[in-house]
Amino acid sequence: MSTEDRVLRKDLLSKVMTAREAARLIRDGITLACSGFTSCGYPKVVPLALAERVRKGDPVRINLITGASVGEELDEELASVGAIARRYPYQTGDMIGRAINDGAVMYHDIHLSRVAEQARCGFLGHLDIAVIEATAIMEDGSIIPTTSVGASPTFIHKADGVIIEVNTAQPMELAGMHDIYTPENPPRRQPIPITDPSQRIGRTSIPCDPGKIIAICRSDMLDKTRPLAAISETSQGIARHLVGFFNRCVRGKLYDDLPPLQSGVGGIANAVMGGILASDWTGISLWAEVIQDAIFDLIDAGKLACASATSLTPSPEGLTRFYRNIETYREKIILRPQEISNSAEVINRLGVVAMNTALEVDIYGNVNSTHTLGNCVINGIGGSGDFSRNAFLSIFMTPSTARGGTISRIVPCVTHVDHTEHEVHVVVTEQGVADLRGLDPRERAEVIIENCAHPDYRDALRDYYRRAVKNVGGHIPFLLDEAFSWHARYRERGTMLP
Amino acid sequence: MSTEDRVLRKDLLSKVMTAREAARLIRDGITLACSGFTSCGYPKVVPLALAERVRKGDPVRINLITGASVGEELDEELASVGAIARRYPYQTGDMIGRAINDGAVMYHDIHLSRVAEQARCGFLGHLDIAVIEATAIMEDGSIIPTTSVGASPTFIHKADGVIIEVNTAQPMELAGMHDIYTPENPPRRQPIPITDPSQRIGRTSIPCDPGKIIAICRSDMLDKTRPLAAISETSQGIARHLVGFFNRCVRGKLYDDLPPLQSGVGGIANAVMGGILASDWTGISLWAEVIQDAIFDLIDAGKLACASATSLTPSPEGLTRFYRNIETYREKIILRPQEISNSAEVINRLGVVAMNTALEVDIYGNVNSTHTLGNCVINGIGGSGDFSRNAFLSIFMTPSTARGGTISRIVPCVTHVDHTEHEVHVVVTEQGVADLRGLDPRERAEVIIENCAHPDYRDALRDYYRRAVKNVGGHIPFLLDEAFSWHARYRERGTMLP
Repeated sequence: MSTEDRVLRKDLLSKVMTAREAARLIRDGITLACSGFTSCGYPKVVPLALAERVRKGDPVRINLITGASVGEELDEELASVGAIARRYPYQTGDMIGRAINDGAVMYHDIHLSRVAEQARCGFLGHLDIAVIEATAIMEDGSIIPTTSVGASPTFIHKADGVIIEVNTAQPMELAGMHDIYTPENPPRRQPIPITDPSQRIGRTSIPCDPGKIIAICRSDMLDKTRPLAAISETSQGIARHLVGFFNRCVRGKLYDDLPPLQSGVGGIANAVMGGILASDWTGISLWAEVIQDAIFDLIDAGKLACASATSLTPSPEGLTRFYRNIETYREKIILRPQEISNSAEVINRLGVVAMNTALEVDIYGNVNSTHTLGNCVINGIGGSGDFSRNAFLSIFMTPSTARGGTISRIVPCVTHVDHTEHEVHVVVTEQGVADLRGLDPRERAEVIIENCAHPDYRDALRDYYRRAVKNVGGHIPFLLDEAFSWHARYRERGTMLP
Repeated sequence: MSTEDRVLRKDLLSKVMTAREAARLIRDGITLACSGFTSCGYPKVVPLALAERVRKGDPVRINLITGASVGEELDEELASVGAIARRYPYQTGDMIGRAINDGAVMYHDIHLSRVAEQARCGFLGHLDIAVIEATAIMEDGSIIPTTSVGASPTFIHKADGVIIEVNTAQPMELAGMHDIYTPENPPRRQPIPITDPSQRIGRTSIPCDPGKIIAICRSDMLDKTRPLAAISETSQGIARHLVGFFNRCVRGKLYDDLPPLQSGVGGIANAVMGGILASDWTGISLWAEVIQDAIFDLIDAGKLACASATSLTPSPEGLTRFYRNIETYREKIILRPQEISNSAEVINRLGVVAMNTALEVDIYGNVNSTHTLGNCVINGIGGSGDFSRNAFLSIFMTPSTARGGTISRIVPCVTHVDHTEHEVHVVVTEQGVADLRGLDPRERAEVIIENCAHPDYRDALRDYYRRAVKNVGGHIPFLLDEAFSWHARYRERGTMLP
């Protein structure tokens, strides 16, 4: 099918133009709100054309808002030419990361559930132009998204003008996979009527006033998704401990059945989903923000009831596999706006078990997900806070060490707190599981050090903890002058080892 | 009305006994789950009798779970005789606080919204005996609570046995003020059907299997509520800035009307409610966990639509005023279980504006609500996290200094994080307002230092921030070796002043 075939509202064909022409509509200083959540469903040809325009000497700096991270054609290309002034709500990439950590790009890291609501209510300024990747434009002007929904319904609704990239590399079979529902603004809105991950509550395309569409561009570029991280022995160890914990606490204790799971992105998440696949659980459902390759294995094994997310973000091979079996896989997958997938209301109601990766965990159970040595942001909090705060059970996973053992992921005090001791129920490393539910901080310290820390660091952690109890005491024994000494040692000597 | 008149199910009269007899039913090592949320609606005569029994040489140590803090007859009396081994989920009091900070009582500080669910699902161990203060016991055995609901419905449901204190000092007019609704356990529960603070969704008494009632005791002790804190000039300054901020952003911007408000306990909260009373807003609604004296002023002024909370916790004079006008005031007040008043689902849906007090705030917008110098717990996180995480707008208030100016409440780095930069939207001190929405950490530092810090500390904060930018940089410029130097200086020299 050509681009023209995919624009079902024929009077809009007059808006078809080249990406270069569309990029010229983007004025200096405006706010651009783009589709995309992880490296899926983001616009590609218009950002590339905009970057080229800037590279050729036409200085444009914009504020860029997306659903979450996006592919390199957007963040990296624009950051490399200095075209991004301000960035919400999440990002991934060397160039954009460097610019943020240099203070050249202003970056506000936002809980992903709140982006659409905050955009609608003016927290994030005026939205000038939305750039949206679409599978097709329907007769009524409404838009069928591609591999993610993100915050596109709100961006389309709030922006003054909309540029559509109709991507013919995205199969028409995506139509019907989306469930578009936008809650009213507060106060006094109605309940989001979801009581099971498989429920559909909305329509399959995003409403759009055709008069707002200022350009339609052709695209046939595939999502540049990230390769599957190899599953290391460490990740497998984490998965083994986690599945063991599930087996001990699910049957007849916390739940009779395995509850809806939230699983994130990356090697550990893949290993954990692999562990769940290998277990004897069936009828598994996922209530998450992203869907990765492991879901296809679960579907093939007949073990998946439903996977609900806002983004389909498999590896390049996974994407090929998905496209090849799209008729089968699409039956089990629903893509929703991120304010639904990450909704506090729904996560809380469904009793989701949240599994997220930590950058570091301290001996009292506080988690840093975002900033190395307290100052350099890696990506952002993403949806981890949406899930951990409102999940029935909140689990954080991390290898016990990093960089060849020179970094302990279990530290006396984390240098940045994204998840507080109050909502970290379980910590898992390849060393073991710390079940923190109901424990006093002093009890938590012992179980985290003994069950989760790497043996190379246990003595030093025990020593810190004992001296904190003896010299200062308190509910959370804490040495002000040594709390960050491990990080300072790493910065000076390249190792946290004493 | 006598106790006997208030036990409408007459076969239960055989269970009436003295508090001393009832206290003997409490065995060493058990878990006691008591009514009470703040110093309201907690049992009094049985805990006093238990403390007396221990004081006389019968060693009993129990695990104590309540809705939140309770009056001194419970926490303080039991802590003073060493009868508490473990404490959930919140506390207030010198004796209990000291025991926790000495490590003699194990204390796990829990988001108050989660207590009932976690108790139902076994996170907090087995519940042996519930001790519940009641206004009356109905024909069907169900229980009319007194001045708070807290987690009593779950405690009654889950405990093996129930001891009731029928308190004849609590007026029968309390009957009808409660709205008892218990959500199912996850997964796949139904929506909590509240779309407006004034809505009633449950029954007026707590279901109780009469066979579980093991004792009924007479009580006529009033709630020992705390006197109203005097409204200082500083609190008035905070209130003035906050009301000014509301006026600037509510009308036609964030909201057309003033949204449901959450306001906490104490002098600043009282001053803020006073400021709202003095404004020209009408039709005000409160969706909160506690109701304080200011509500009566709002009712008298005809400005209150509805106040919904889990506890009625006015000052002693406020309690007298409430009892005197109970027929009028009860029409505007609904008392709910804390898992409803603090529900993520409902707070998120209603778009509550949360106003909580901070112990300290750092220049990047992280808030410490619980631990002085990182180690000594004051009370606990209480409901502040339930509200701040899911509120539409989350505001934290604090005086800019404490202890005669020797402590700056605005610091380079907080020593404990209860509320992260991701959900602190606005900071208010008597110096001014920092509206942090959409700002990068570097921008946040400038606006917090310039608008909120006390002038005596601004130069030192600017100096820290400038050196952090210059020497380390990053998204959140941060000096590992100086982050807690202000707190260390205070511990050594009794002042944070350089």
